[in-house]
Amino acid sequence: MIENPKPQYAQIAELLRARIEDGTYEAGAVLPSEDRLAEELGVSRVTVNRAVGLLRSSGDVRVKRGVGTTIRTLPQIHRDASARYAARGEGAGAGEVEVRKLNLKSRTDYRRIGQAEPPAAVAKVLGLGAGEPSLLRSRVLYANDEPTQIADSYLPWSVTKDSESLTQPDAGPGGSYGRLAELGVGPVRFTEDVTVRTPTEAEQRTLGLDAAQPVFQIWHVAYTASDRPIEVCIHVMPGYLWTLRYGWDDGPAPDAG
Amino acid sequence: MIENPKPQYAQIAELLRARIEDGTYEAGAVLPSEDRLAEELGVSRVTVNRAVGLLRSSGDVRVKRGVGTTIRTLPQIHRDASARYAARGEGAGAGEVEVRKLNLKSRTDYRRIGQAEPPAAVAKVLGLGAGEPSLLRSRVLYANDEPTQIADSYLPWSVTKDSESLTQPDAGPGGSYGRLAELGVGPVRFTEDVTVRTPTEAEQRTLGLDAAQPVFQIWHVAYTASDRPIEVCIHVMPGYLWTLRYGWDDGPAPDAG
Repeated sequence: MIENPKPQYAQIAELLRARIEDGTYEAGAVLPSEDRLAEELGVSRVTVNRAVGLLRSSGDVRVKRGVGTTIRTLPQIHRDASARYAARGEGAGAGEVEVRKLNLKSRTDYRRIGQAEPPAAVAKVLGLGAGEPSLLRSRVLYANDEPTQIADSYLPWSVTKDSESLTQPDAGPGGSYGRLAELGVGPVRFTEDVTVRTPTEAEQRTLGLDAAQPVFQIWHVAYTASDRPIEVCIHVMPGYLWTLRYGWDDGPAPDAG
Repeated sequence: MIENPKPQYAQIAELLRARIEDGTYEAGAVLPSEDRLAEELGVSRVTVNRAVGLLRSSGDVRVKRGVGTTIRTLPQIHRDASARYAARGEGAGAGEVEVRKLNLKSRTDYRRIGQAEPPAAVAKVLGLGAGEPSLLRSRVLYANDEPTQIADSYLPWSVTKDSESLTQPDAGPGGSYGRLAELGVGPVRFTEDVTVRTPTEAEQRTLGLDAAQPVFQIWHVAYTASDRPIEVCIHVMPGYLWTLRYGWDDGPAPDAG
């Protein structure tokens, strides 16, 4: 089968990507207008528009309201699942490990900590009865002041109600898992279900995405030594920004929970 | 902050999705034309077009050339990373485990098996010198005759050159890992790097996707007992079709390889 020649807009996208990579267009700078690019490159404005659309999907550029189309500033962030949770005793919250490794400035904004009715699917995993509340710890993480993920962590209220620390942004040494361990329900095993989807309107605003930019959704479940699901954390992350790393040794399949 | 009301096209997308879920529009059927939907729902054709665009991104419908916009036929497929490789001794190839579990008909088409120059990044992981070839086993997997993934597996030619079985579609008991074990380089540890991106033109054709539908790319690396990377397999999978499941026990971070 003969390969189709690459369509013109894809060729233009490649050319613009090369200019981003070689620094002709600097990180954070505003891309020349589509009219100017069309004139310079001798193609139609429609072709340039489709090319820029590809660059938006791939995260190479984004549209900043009131500014224009700007060049990507953050590098690809590697999230090593087991390493990030193993690092939780070392000062940084698990969520900040990857970002600091890249010498980026990390920040976590807690937007809500308190009692909340969990989504039905979360209640089911946590084994909560009808109307039984959870403690929600909802946060947005940043690298160099750009949003990198939303993380909503749900814990059974019946377990957390006596822990003052768990209602604070800084839950103390070892983070919230440290407090759960003190309560006798420390997590020792984890599963993550990874899906990809388009972002909701609210997520688009929070993460600075447009509707065409897919997000990873990670459904992280932590289990105690007696295999009780003790936390569900839902991570929503711009797809173009992250590489998710998992590793395992061969052997019998672990119980899928 | 007050939430924006949901835009009209998003409301229309929700309505159409509800009709798919309740069976008003059956799996595999052709969606009514955008003109007819616009008339029935009392909105503009542009609004219907944007709504259908959302359904395409989410995989609820797809455009079949010469047929029209058709309703999704395959359910979400769960891929449990450690379970799928643990199951490789049980007759089915690792790649077919998830699909059979859903009582779907699985099929693997080998489109190429033979000596090939690996991509530079693959050669680097496998420790191949300049110009050193690999054995490529390239296949497309199907469920009920719909393509579900492309899997390109690269092995060092120097290791595989004496194995007749590895050049066959059916590599024998335990698949290609069984043969590697007989050669003294059986995989015992794995890492996977998961990214999401838009599909290339060739991938769009092979997987029946359009440019706006993101794909998972899984970069699967298998290591021997002496920690030699012995295989790189690159999986490209329609994002809307898959949930990726990983699990691990707490402990020190494994060496990231």
